[in-house]
This record gives sequence, structure tokens and C-alpha cells, in this order.
Amino acid sequence: MFTNIKRLLIGRPLKSAELGEQKINKTKALAILSSDALSSVAYGPEQILIVLITVGAAAFWYSIPIAAGVLFLLTALIMSYRQIIYAYPHGGGAYVVSKTNLGVNPGLVAGGSLLVDYILTVAVSVSAGTDAITSAFPTLHDYNVEIAIVFVIFLTVLNLRGVTESASVLAYPVYLFVLALFILIGVGIFNILTGDVPQDLHAPIGTPVAGISLFILLRAFASGSSALTGVEAISNAIPNFKDPAPVNAARTLMMMGALLAILFSGIVTLAYFYGIVPKAEVTVVSQIAEETFGRNFMYFFIQGTTALILILAANTGYSAFPLLAVNLAKDKFIPRMFLVRGDRLGYSNGIIILGLASIFLIVAFHAETEHLIPLYAVGVFVPFTLSQTGMMLKWLREKPEGWVPKFIINTTGALISFIVTMMFFLTKFSQVWSILVFLPIIVLIFHRIKKHYEAVGDQLRLTTCEPALEIKGNVMIVPVAGMTHVVDNTLRYAKSLNPDQIIAVNVSFGREDQKKFEEKWEQWQPDIRLVTLHSYYRSILGPLTKFVDTVANKAKENDYQVTVVIPQFIPKKGWHNILHNQSSLLIRSYLLYKRDIVIATVPFHLKK
Amino acid sequence: MFTNIKRLLIGRPLKSAELGEQKINKTKALAILSSDALSSVAYGPEQILIVLITVGAAAFWYSIPIAAGVLFLLTALIMSYRQIIYAYPHGGGAYVVSKTNLGVNPGLVAGGSLLVDYILTVAVSVSAGTDAITSAFPTLHDYNVEIAIVFVIFLTVLNLRGVTESASVLAYPVYLFVLALFILIGVGIFNILTGDVPQDLHAPIGTPVAGISLFILLRAFASGSSALTGVEAISNAIPNFKDPAPVNAARTLMMMGALLAILFSGIVTLAYFYGIVPKAEVTVVSQIAEETFGRNFMYFFIQGTTALILILAANTGYSAFPLLAVNLAKDKFIPRMFLVRGDRLGYSNGIIILGLASIFLIVAFHAETEHLIPLYAVGVFVPFTLSQTGMMLKWLREKPEGWVPKFIINTTGALISFIVTMMFFLTKFSQVWSILVFLPIIVLIFHRIKKHYEAVGDQLRLTTCEPALEIKGNVMIVPVAGMTHVVDNTLRYAKSLNPDQIIAVNVSFGREDQKKFEEKWEQWQPDIRLVTLHSYYRSILGPLTKFVDTVANKAKENDYQVTVVIPQFIPKKGWHNILHNQSSLLIRSYLLYKRDIVIATVPFHLKK
Repeated sequence: MFTNIKRLLIGRPLKSAELGEQKINKTKALAILSSDALSSVAYGPEQILIVLITVGAAAFWYSIPIAAGVLFLLTALIMSYRQIIYAYPHGGGAYVVSKTNLGVNPGLVAGGSLLVDYILTVAVSVSAGTDAITSAFPTLHDYNVEIAIVFVIFLTVLNLRGVTESASVLAYPVYLFVLALFILIGVGIFNILTGDVPQDLHAPIGTPVAGISLFILLRAFASGSSALTGVEAISNAIPNFKDPAPVNAARTLMMMGALLAILFSGIVTLAYFYGIVPKAEVTVVSQIAEETFGRNFMYFFIQGTTALILILAANTGYSAFPLLAVNLAKDKFIPRMFLVRGDRLGYSNGIIILGLASIFLIVAFHAETEHLIPLYAVGVFVPFTLSQTGMMLKWLREKPEGWVPKFIINTTGALISFIVTMMFFLTKFSQVWSILVFLPIIVLIFHRIKKHYEAVGDQLRLTTCEPALEIKGNVMIVPVAGMTHVVDNTLRYAKSLNPDQIIAVNVSFGREDQKKFEEKWEQWQPDIRLVTLHSYYRSILGPLTKFVDTVANKAKENDYQVTVVIPQFIPKKGWHNILHNQSSLLIRSYLLYKRDIVIATVPFHLKK
Repeated sequence: MFTNIKRLLIGRPLKSAELGEQKINKTKALAILSSDALSSVAYGPEQILIVLITVGAAAFWYSIPIAAGVLFLLTALIMSYRQIIYAYPHGGGAYVVSKTNLGVNPGLVAGGSLLVDYILTVAVSVSAGTDAITSAFPTLHDYNVEIAIVFVIFLTVLNLRGVTESASVLAYPVYLFVLALFILIGVGIFNILTGDVPQDLHAPIGTPVAGISLFILLRAFASGSSALTGVEAISNAIPNFKDPAPVNAARTLMMMGALLAILFSGIVTLAYFYGIVPKAEVTVVSQIAEETFGRNFMYFFIQGTTALILILAANTGYSAFPLLAVNLAKDKFIPRMFLVRGDRLGYSNGIIILGLASIFLIVAFHAETEHLIPLYAVGVFVPFTLSQTGMMLKWLREKPEGWVPKFIINTTGALISFIVTMMFFLTKFSQVWSILVFLPIIVLIFHRIKKHYEAVGDQLRLTTCEPALEIKGNVMIVPVAGMTHVVDNTLRYAKSLNPDQIIAVNVSFGREDQKKFEEKWEQWQPDIRLVTLHSYYRSILGPLTKFVDTVANKAKENDYQVTVVIPQFIPKKGWHNILHNQSSLLIRSYLLYKRDIVIATVPFHLKK
């Protein structure tokens, strides 16, 4: 049953040898890895204007130099990540780069930060996309949380089906969005050039503005750079690319950078020439589209693809999170289960954990995740800064041929990223302080986990330990609840192994029951010693474990091993289990976890 | 840790021999078993007026004859249940009476109906009480569900502490409520007699009313009789009474009947003389109290104790549900776990299940359980009718000395209960139809459970089966993941039992790993046969179970028993388990539940 449902949802299992077929080409990679970055065009320019409007509409011309700054940062980041891809062709992005060049703890800060960030990516973008949809259909607004959860489940299942399949499904909406914005920007620029847009809608560049300050400009710049989240995804996901993976990844990265630059500057330019003022109810992109086309088909096409890409931006998280988790798990900083490939060769545990964690965030924040955005941006710029600083050190240390321009690129990137990070802390501290709490905690957990894995390895390794004790004999204890076929079956099994002693134990709640049981037993199994225990508190576990302890202590003196052989009848149908006392499970886990006792369970299968 | 918290909440465990001390005297029994019945005075009279107002305020005088009818029904029920208590001194009420006299299925209908009803009692009365509290403090209104859940948890813990302790805690509020209403009724009647209440507030009895019909009168009667729910609780709870239990139970029942009659008729009389008109926002009792005292201390005292008793009414469910469940479980119609006494000698499983089920209802209905009230009333009157019909048949069959008056009492009770039940179906079908669906389902489940228990009993009984097969030899299979201390330990254990064959099995994901492993093994354990399996789909369970199946089939031919000996390392701290692959658990449950294989788990305790 479960297997069938699973197969229907995610498809037939793939052999490990089929891994190569699950790798993706550049066109599809661009679609699934850049949706996060490209979607930020839908809100990045708006963030700049929202800061500038605090001074006045006259300040809007500053959006042009600020956008130029963002483009400069984007170029630096893209160039830098291109260098990272070639330098670390097995993926890992900020985590691997920081760890290798700056040390373990900076690496863990970058890795932990990104790990949390991808969860935020999924929660924030699915919530934003859901909001865009329910704004169009207000009756659905009460079901925001449910709709968002359905989208997360959809993306989770899609990703469990495998990278190629999700890439095929997601390529269309991403390219449609790019196409829609290209048409919008093209028509808009044409209108401006042909003079269809009145000149008086915008203040000319250079107009003096009263009240403008460096602080506000930097703040606008930091807000605008939130459009750059998602840039690092490709460097994490190199292993998903077709060979030659680094070359393909680098080309995809350049392509994404170019698209992002064109769309971002196009939207900023149109907003400036149209004199768009940010409004609470209507997005900047929507205003530009309406200004350009009126409320016709193109307008709705742009709105629709925008909503879609906001949801699909979450998919970047699904591509990058499991691969980052693999890198952390390989270094034993997170549980090993993240290393296991699922039926469809994806790292299914990572995908499922990501889905669950973002559903948790969506439920906890009632799908109102806007105030998580600054946190999310800081969570990206911290690893940006660390990884570029790491690259700086790398060039300084290794000094390969032609390292100076590379060093300059990374230094520039590191500086700007650092400034942006600081701007977030200075201007939005109330929304981002929590990262200062949870990052150290995450790093601490990483270390605890690694310490545990290493301790286990040490203890299991054959070279390290005292010589093993010989087992000189065996004592078997059989807890018996009555005189039935199950018990009979178990006793026969115990006898067949010829241990040095077999003891049957019965726990009774009344003195008379006890006596009666002893008499009957004497007739039924005269050759097996029976011990009856009286329970004052109606507990079976209590007296039984006390007895087992006594026997075990004595056995230890003679180097005997104690085995508790548990008779267990197995009902024919699963639901029947709730009709039966599960005390054997309790006995088993208690003895196994607290004591050094072997537990053998002898099944007796019921036929009806 | 868990043990300490548990002990703090519910107290130290009690020995089975201390059971007698947990029995309660009449004063306390009255408090905990009649809170449901007494609390219905707070809404019963109002229900009558709400039906009559549909005709007009002039019809209010009919509340007097209707109340007389309800009192008559109450008398018949009390007399009848008094007879049931003496006839069935071990408790069980409607279930036992109907089963014994009418047959198994009517018994199950009565029992199932009451079982569900006690859950409704808890949900409905806690919700109503919470509502009364949050009406006084409107800021709390948004937290209705949470507050109601806290009350349910409080009552659950209180009842887990044991019957005597909950009786001691709950006696005060119940008697305070009775005292408050006595003062209210006393002062009210005094005012009426001294002529302080104007004569023109009420239409004289016998005033002709246009539009009144038998249907409306019967409907008002049915609504009023919802005040009689809870009357059967005492007959279910006889085992909780001090000896002589039946005598004490019967006296408590009479006392409750008398109190209920006085309070009910007092409130109806005052409402009539004061000419109270039911309002949506202010309850009838509240109007009477304000009319009598104004808004002084007495008014708030009455309101407060009323809110309290509405919540405590839930406690009747806690007293009666576990005992009814015991009766059903003794007959094997519900899981045996309901027979187990907990640490404090209460039937804790019943108490916990009741708490969980009512929390579920409260959450599902957002603590707005008013529309469950008719369902709840029908769920009481169905067993009323069945049990009294059962008593009728009992007298007819047995004809003991002086049976005629007893027969008349039960016949009257059965007839009126039947009429009330029918009235609910006729006048409120839309709210009570669901009982016609779920009662047959519950009865069906009861039968399925009993059938299963009987089938299990048949299969386990030693007399019924074919002679047992001798086990002629043992094969042990040890799944090995590597060459470590855990495996070493397990192999030593297997060897110490001298089976006919030991096979170590390794599942590998790559051909090279496989070869390397085989070579190393040859050096490490040359005397133990190693089988390596290749897994195409990265699953350990798949290849392993296939191999075990093959071995098991071959072993069966020679009457050999197969044991899978699983090496398991036990981490020092519980949370460490999530860091390790739990595949041994998966292997264990698969082989145990699907195959006839003995599973032995050999623990290896890590020291750090």
C-alpha cells in the first residue's frame, strides 16, 4: 500500500548506476537554480524606492546610481563565484570555501547560515507567491496557510522525483517570466525613446534633494541588494550538472548574472522614467505593466508569471539545501542520514527535512513571512562575506599566475558584502538580531554532533580496546504470561539452543494466582525452572527487571551471558496490535538500553 | 525525569492492597457524581422557555406543568435506577442491564451510546464553563480553546491522582453551588410570598394561548428533560463506593434526585413569577439572581459557582467513563488496556483516553459545542429507554415478590424516555441524525474486537493445535556493516550458543567495496562464512530479506530454526539515536512481522 502510493508520487526507484542520467544541462539548470535570484527582481527595485520615498519623490533619481551600485556588487559576486566554481569544482560554495581558507568555525558559520537561509527561502517565497495569488482571489485569503503548505508539499514531491524531472516541469514558468519581463522592458524603453512618456514624470538626475543623507542612501543600497540572494545557489549545486560540470556551472552562472542585470536595471529604469511611487496595495512591477500596456492580456501575463516565479523561487532552496547538507554530513557536522540517496537518487532526507522545516515556519508565522526577509538577506550576506574573504586569502597564499585581478575581484566583493551586512545590522537591527543568537547555537550543535561521531568511531575501532572477554556459558530467561502456544513455542526454541540454564519467570498480581500457576506449571513443564514474582504495584516491568538484574550480576561473575527470550504473538492485521498489551516492547527497550542483556524475540504468527 | 514529573503530578504509586482506601463516602460521591445532573439546572429551565417564547410570553405559564412532567420523569428515572443499583450491585448501569435482559446488541447500543456521551459531556460542559468565564473577561475570549484544554488537562490529572483526591477537591464547589441556589430560591420565594414581586409580571396559570400545540409542548418537554442527563452516572460507578456499596449508592442517588428536583422546580417557579424572558446574552439564572439581589456580592457568588459547576460537570464523565469501559473490556468488546489500574489505582487508560477524545472534540469544534447538546441528550435517552425496558422484562420474567409496583415504575420510565427520544428525533433531526450513523459503526467495531480476541484465545490455547514441531538445529545470520567491536561482540555471542551454522552478511553498494570487504574479512574472521550482497537500489533491507528468505526456506525443509542476530550499539544519550541509522529497527520489525524468524539483538553500550 505505502509502496504503491510512494511509487505513484515519486516514480519507480532508480538504480545507483543511473545517476548520470539524473544530471541536468545548462538550460534546465538555469531554470531551477536561478528562480530565486530572478524572482527577486519582482521586489528588489521596490525596496530601493520604499527607502527613498521617506525623503520625497524628488529623491527617486538616486535609484539609478544605487542600482548601478547593486549591479557593480552583482558583477563582483558573479565573477567571484565563477572563480569559486573553478577552484572548488565539487561544490559546497561558501561552506567549503570558508572552511578551507578561513578555518572550521567560519566555515560552519557560513554553512549554518546558508542551511537556515534555504529554509527561509522556501517559507518566504512560497508565502509571497501564495499572497500574490490570494490577492487576485480574495475569497481564498483565509486559506493562505493551507495553500502555501500545498505548494511546499508539491515542490517536495517534485524534488523527490528527481532533479531532471523538477527541472523539466519548472523550466517553462521561469522562462515565461523572463520573456514577459523582456517584452515589458522592451516596450517600455521603446515608449520612452519615442517620447511617449511625458518628461515631467521624473526629476532629472542630479536634482538636489533636501534631507538626503549617506545613511539613507546606504540603507536603500542594502535593501536593493536583497535582490542578490540566490546568487550562491549554483556554486553549491555543481554536482548536479552534466560533465564537464564546472564549465557548465560557470556558464550558467554568467547567464544568470546577465539576465539578472538586464531585468534589474530595466525595471529600475522604467520605474524612474514612469515616476512610479511605491504603494502598499500595488507592486511596482504591476504599476509599470499597467502604465505600459493598460489592463490587457500582457498585464495579466506579467502578473501571473511573477506570482508563479515567486513560488518557484523556493525551488532554489530545494536544489541547494540537500547538497550543502551532504557537504556538512560528510564532515560529520550533521546527521549521516543526509548522505543517503533516495529511490530517485536525490538526497531525499534533505529534501524532506527542508519541506517539513519550511511548513513549520509557514504555520508558525501564519504564512506572513515578510518580516523574515531582512533576516534572510543577512543570512545570505554573512556567507558571501566569508567566502569572498576566504578567496582573498587563497589568492594571497597561493599566488597562482595572474592572481592579482582575481584578488581584486574577490576583495571588492568581500568589502561590499561586508558593508551590506553591516548596513543590515545598523538599519534593521530589530529584525536581524536573532541571527546573532541562533548562529552560535547552530555552530555549537555542529561541534557536538561531530564530537559524538568521533567518540563512536573511536569506541568501535577494533585496534583501540581491551581484549574481548570470552563468553563461558549462557543463561536464558523466558518471561511467561500464561501457558499457551506462544510460550510453548518459545521454550522449544530456547531448549534447542542448549543454554546452561533456562528460567521461566511469571509476574502475578495476587498470591492465589501465583500458587495456582506454580502448580499447573509443575505439570506442564516439570523440567524448566519457574520463578514467580509478586507485583505490589501492578507493574510487570518493575519486578521483572529487578529479577533480570539479579541474574545478570550473578552471571557476570562467571562470565556467563544472559539472554531474555521474549515470546511474542504477531496478529494477522496491523490494527490488531492496539488490542494487545505491548509490554514486551517496553521490556525489550528497557533491558536493551539500560542493561547489557541480549534480547531475543520469538514470533508466533496468528493465522486469523 | 519522566518518573519524577509523573510523581509530582499524580502522586506516589499505590499498592494494589490499598484499593479499599480509594473508595469514597456518600458526601463526596454526591459531589463528584452529581455535578453533571445538578449543573443542568443552570440551562434546563431556560431550554423550556426558549421553546415557549416561539408562541409568545403568554405561554410561559406552561413551563409549570412541563416542569411537573420533567419532575415526574425524574422521579421515575431515580426510582428505576435505584432498582437497577440493587439488582446489579457491581455497576454497569444501562450497558449491563440492557445486555442481561435484552441481549448483546441492545446492550452494546446502550454502552456505545454512553461511552460517546461521556466524551460529549466533558467537551460540552468544559466549553460551556469556559464560555461563562470568558463572558465575564472578554479579553480572554480568543483563548477559549486553550483555556478549555487546560481545564480538561486539569481534570484528567486530578482524576489520575485518584477518586478520593478528586472528590475532596471537587466537593466544595459543588456544595457551594447548591448552597448558592438554595439561598437564591429561598429569598426569591420569600419575596414572592411577601408580595414584593408584582402580580402582573406573569400570566396566570390556565390563560388560553393562541397558537400553542401539542408539538410545541412536547418539544419544550424534550428540551427540559435535557436537564436529566447525568442521572445514570451513579449506577455506573457503584464500585467506587464504600461498602455496603449498593446501599450507599442508592442513598446518594435519592439525595441527588431530591436536590435536582428542588433546584429545578425552584428555578422554574422563580422564572415564572418574575416573568423572565430568555435572552441571548444573559442566562435565565443570571436574570433571576439580578432580579432578586441586584448586582451585589450574592449575584457574583451565584454566577461564579454556576460557571464552576459547568466545568466540574465534566467530572461526572471522568467518574463514569472508565468504569463503563471496564465493563465493556471485561466482555472483550473494547481493548483490554481499559482493565489496567494505574499507579493510583484508577483506570488510568480510560481517564487518559477520555481526556484526549474530549480535547479532540474541543479543538475540532473550536470550543463551540452548543450544537452538540441535542446529540448528547439523545445519547443519554437511548440508554435510558433500553435499560428501563430491560428492567421491565426482568420483572416480567422473574416475577419476584412485590414485582408489580417495580414493573409499573420501570414501564412508566421506559415509556417517557422513549417519548423524549422520539421527540428529539422528530423536532431536532438535523442535529441528532448522526447518532443513527455512528451507533451501528460503534457496535460493529465492538463485535470485530470481540471476534479478534476470541480468535486469538482459540489459537493460543494449548488443547486446540497440532503437535509442535521439534527444532532439529539452528542457523544464525549476523548482518555486519563493518569490522568493529559491535560486530565482534555479536559474533562472540553467536559462537557461544554453538549453532549448526553462522553466516555473516554484508550488503555493499559498490563492486570494489565488496571485494575489499571480503579480503579483509578472510583475515579477520576466517572461520565464519561471509556472504556479500550487492544492492542496486541503495537499500539494505531489500537484499538482506531476500537472502534471509532463501536461508529460511532451506532451513525449514530440515526443521532448522533461523535466528537473525543483530549487532546494535547503544549510544550513551537518547538524543544520539537520531544521529545513527536506525536500519536495525527496520530489519527487526520486517523480519519479525512478515517472516517466522527469531530476532536476537545484541547490545554494545558506548561509554561516551
